[in-house]
Formats: sequence, structure tokens, C-alpha cells
Amino acid sequence: MTSSQAILNGDRLALARLLTQVENNSQEGRSSLMELFPHTGKAHLIGVTGAPGTGKSSLVNQLALHYRKNENKRIAIVAIDPSSPFTGGAVLGDRVRMRDLSGDPNVFIRSMASRGSLGGLAQATANVVQVFDAAGFDIVIVETVGAGQSEVDIARLAHTTLVVEAPGLGDDIQAIKAGILEIADILVVNKADRPGVENTEKALKSMLELAHPTERVFKHHGVSMKVEAPKQKPTTAMWIPPIQRTVSTEGTGIPELVNAIGRHVAHLRLSGDWSLRERTRLEVELEALIRDGLMNQFRDSITTQQYEETMESVMQRKISPWEAASTLMNGRKP
Amino acid sequence: MTSSQAILNGDRLALARLLTQVENNSQEGRSSLMELFPHTGKAHLIGVTGAPGTGKSSLVNQLALHYRKNENKRIAIVAIDPSSPFTGGAVLGDRVRMRDLSGDPNVFIRSMASRGSLGGLAQATANVVQVFDAAGFDIVIVETVGAGQSEVDIARLAHTTLVVEAPGLGDDIQAIKAGILEIADILVVNKADRPGVENTEKALKSMLELAHPTERVFKHHGVSMKVEAPKQKPTTAMWIPPIQRTVSTEGTGIPELVNAIGRHVAHLRLSGDWSLRERTRLEVELEALIRDGLMNQFRDSITTQQYEETMESVMQRKISPWEAASTLMNGRKP
Repeated sequence: MTSSQAILNGDRLALARLLTQVENNSQEGRSSLMELFPHTGKAHLIGVTGAPGTGKSSLVNQLALHYRKNENKRIAIVAIDPSSPFTGGAVLGDRVRMRDLSGDPNVFIRSMASRGSLGGLAQATANVVQVFDAAGFDIVIVETVGAGQSEVDIARLAHTTLVVEAPGLGDDIQAIKAGILEIADILVVNKADRPGVENTEKALKSMLELAHPTERVFKHHGVSMKVEAPKQKPTTAMWIPPIQRTVSTEGTGIPELVNAIGRHVAHLRLSGDWSLRERTRLEVELEALIRDGLMNQFRDSITTQQYEETMESVMQRKISPWEAASTLMNGRKP
Repeated sequence: MTSSQAILNGDRLALARLLTQVENNSQEGRSSLMELFPHTGKAHLIGVTGAPGTGKSSLVNQLALHYRKNENKRIAIVAIDPSSPFTGGAVLGDRVRMRDLSGDPNVFIRSMASRGSLGGLAQATANVVQVFDAAGFDIVIVETVGAGQSEVDIARLAHTTLVVEAPGLGDDIQAIKAGILEIADILVVNKADRPGVENTEKALKSMLELAHPTERVFKHHGVSMKVEAPKQKPTTAMWIPPIQRTVSTEGTGIPELVNAIGRHVAHLRLSGDWSLRERTRLEVELEALIRDGLMNQFRDSITTQQYEETMESVMQRKISPWEAASTLMNGRKP
């Protein structure tokens, strides 16, 4: 039996092995991904993002528990973990998760560390999500720290994006990050038992009013390939991101949040936005693959000597990086 | 007089205009950059990164004031601003800056918002830094929020990278982000008048001991092009990142921090690491330009119909994005 078949049959060991292969971008991983791709497109992808200290991990934990207990859904959690291996919240969060969710064969948690290269993480995450989708998980939750552009880019590829805030994190943190509000389908004010929750909610509300929803939808579905805009027009029935209060440590507000997520899925299906988001996600992935493929072709087409000589001229400020790029692109073997 | 000449002559209006052109990646911007490039390579680039709430902006402010008053250096500050236009710390920080530094013709502050695309910001920042370098600024400080991979990638391209921490930010925030420690040349514990400063410093020290410095140097200088490793070997005289305490609101510890920065520059010059970092930075920039150039060539080489048909097959799960990428790359016009 091939590993793809094993995964389609629910083999957790084969799944874990493929996830590692896919994260390492190995040849086996790529072949299995290709075999599995026809089986994707069923899972509901939920992105959860927010600043450190908002209690995202514990919220994701509660969501997973709720979906398990009340809807018997199979849940995969992909935690994008920018923390050091030495210390900090992520390890602790994982321990809490292990206690509540471990031993349940219908839950699979995967932590992914930030990679060295810009964009590498986004591609690896897309692939890991595809594997879970093909493996029959109904819901794939991707959790990122929403302070960086790359994390925001990852979160926005979900069908439903939750942006998590919390009261009393101080001015500097409270500042909603660029792009964060416009990618939010649902705003969650977690730690809502803390003082200042009204102010946080009020601030979010006034920002929602400022952020013109029409533009928001266009931006969200911006086709990166820029070959042609999607044919569908933004729907007349607009989705106004609701604000949900939760206290994830106590499970307060989780059923209401799950309800809001359900309403969002219904909206996506009805409006046609579901397939629009699918398309955007696949286009972003396709573009990344093409970019990497072109760069690999390019690397093979120039000699080390060509490259070294050109770099030397740049170092000596004889030619600019711009001129160096065109020299190398024009001078390569056909 | 061309705009490049005006900038070399110290014309602030021409400088501001070119910065906008360069940020917008316009044709004029690119030509001027090419003309200015031979005049670059003199500025000392300082990256300052750290989690929200560590007081980075005020620290950068104090550094700039110190360099102005005591060393008569010309200072440019590039603030990478992930905050929303609606609210938050950045606007406030800018106001504080305006009060202390405005009216000084030898200080230029430029805020840059996060762009939509992954990598776009890194390229724009590199170009803005080049303009300041050519315009004769002695020190260019690039300030980023160090919670995201792209921000880390931007900060690591400096000659000297400061990672800012602060006591009492809570477990989740305290967690040093991946890659953060290994890019730090100097660790700053800001807000050092707060309780818990000893613990923060102790945690940083033990993490420094865990992070093997030999590996650190190799990683920092990882050549992205991967055509050939740099010829220089890591120097035997290792740089151990010092930990500096500051209270930036009061200016405490700033002279000592400036001193540590000076020692780092001396180390870079002596060890040959200065040109090694220059090379890495220019290589990263060259690679980004080539990637974009190849993608543009590619876009011109396929028809809208080819693209749409292929995307349709992907949407219907007939072919995987991987297969679609090779189909499009092989099927294009020569």
C-alpha cells in the first residue's frame, strides 16, 4: 500500500511521516501530495491569528474540544510557532493541549516552526493543510501569531479567519496590525472577564465602521497572479464581522463563537465566496510554486563563475543589483 | 539637475520624492537607484527589532538624539510600521519623535507600512536604505516589530542588529521568537527600571549560552543564492552579544549602548564580517530582483486563456498545483 493510500485509510503513523516529508519539501512528500490532491477541497479551513498574550492557543483548544464533543468533527490543528525551542508560551500551550486533546484519534496537532526563508513557511503550511484535508479532517485550524506579515498572509488563506484580541494589553499591543482587520471574518475578544473589555469592544466597533467593507472584500480576494480578476463580483449580501466575547480558560462564549463560524460558512456557501477563497488560495500556491521553479531553472542556467563575477562587480559598486539581475538573466544559457 | 544629483547635494525635497518613488517601485525610482548605487556602501545600518511593548521606538529616538548631540552624525530612521492607520502606538510614537527630532536637517524619519505582498516590504526597505546611504546619512536605523518572519528578515540585513526585550511582558510575549536570538548582535533590556529586570537578563544569559555562537555566525551569513559559500571563514575572534540595560524614556544606558554599538562596528571591520554582511545583503537583494524579473517574464509568456484553463483544472482537482506549475512553465512561448 502506498503512503497516500494509508493516509486515505486513516493511518496516523503514515500521516505523521508524510507531514514531516512535506515540511522538508522532499521528493516523496511532493509525489504523495500530487496523489492526494484530488481528495482535497472538503475541509473547512479556519485561520486564528492575534497578538501574543491574547490567549489564542487556549481558544483554539476550546474550539477543538467543542467540535469534538458536540459535532463529532475530525479536527487538525496546525500551530505556526515562532517561539524559541528554549522557552516560552508555545511549549506550555502544547502541554495544555496534550492534556485535553491527547488520545483522541480524531484530533491531530502539528506544530510548525518558522523557517529561515520568507515564504517558505507559507508554502509548507499550505501543503500540510492539504494533507489534513485529503486525510479526511473536517476542520483544519491554522493558528498564527498575527504580528508579522507572513503570519497574516498564512491566516488569510483560510475560509474563515478569526482575529483574537484581549483587553488590557497596553497601547502598543492593542494597536490593530495593518491588514489584520481587513482579513477578519470574526473578531474575538478573548479574556473577556478582564477589566477594559468594553473599551476593547468599542475600539473594534469603531474601527469596523471605518474599514469600508466593500474594499475589504475586494482586497481579500485580490488575485495574486494578476492575469485576470475573478469573474464573480462581490456579493450584495455583505458579511459584517461579528464581535464575539470569550473566556477561553473557562469555555465561556465558545458555543456562541462556534455558532458565528457556522453562520460564516453558510454565508460563504450562499454567496459563492467559498469557491472564490478556494481559488485565491490555490492561485497563491500556484504562484509560489512557479516562482520557485523559475528560480531553480535559473540557478541551473548560470555558472558559478558568472555569478561570482557579477556579485564582485556589485560589491565594488560598479553595477547596481538591478543591472546585475538583468545581466545574469540575459547572459544565461538558453 | 537630475533628482539623483539633487539628492547627492542634500536636497531634502528631492530625497522625499525619490523615497516615495522607490516605495512605489516606479520606473523613475529604479533609474535613480541605479544612478545612486555607486555612492552607497558607506552608511552603518542598524536594525532594531523586538516585540510590541518593549519601547523600541523611544529607544531608537534616544539613539538618534545621542548620535546627533555627541557625534554629529547624520541619521535616517526607517520605521517599518505594521500598525493600522486608524489607531495605536505608531502614530503616538511618531508624534514623540517629531517633538524631539523635528527641525533637525540632519535627521530624516521615514515610516513604511507593511505591504500586501510577502517580500515586497523587504525589497522596498532595502531600496529606501540604499537611498539614505547614497544621500550621505552616516547611520540608517531600521526599526521593525520582531514578531514576524518578514520583520526578522528585514532586521537581519543590518550591519548591527539590536534585539530589544523588556521585563514583565508576560510569558507569552517573553518567549524569544525563533531566529531572534541568533540575529542579535546586541541584546537590549529596555524599561530596566521595572521589576523583573534581573529575571529577564538571567533568561537572556542562559539562552545565549545555549545558542552556540559558532552556529550563529554561520547562520547569519547563510548565502541565500546557494551558488557558493562565501570565501571568508568565520573569524576566530567571536562576537558574544552583550546585554545592555536601558530606560529609554529617561535616556539611561544610552551612552553605554552606543559604546557597545561602536565596539561591534570595530569588530565587524577587524574580522572582515563587515563586507561579509554587505555581501549577504546584496545577494538577498539580487535574488529578490531576479525572482521578480523571472516572474514578470513568465507572466508575459503565457496567455490568459492558458492560465485560466490550467486554474480551472486545479479548481476541479483534476491536476495538482504542482502539475499546473510545470504545465504552465513548459507550455509557455519561448
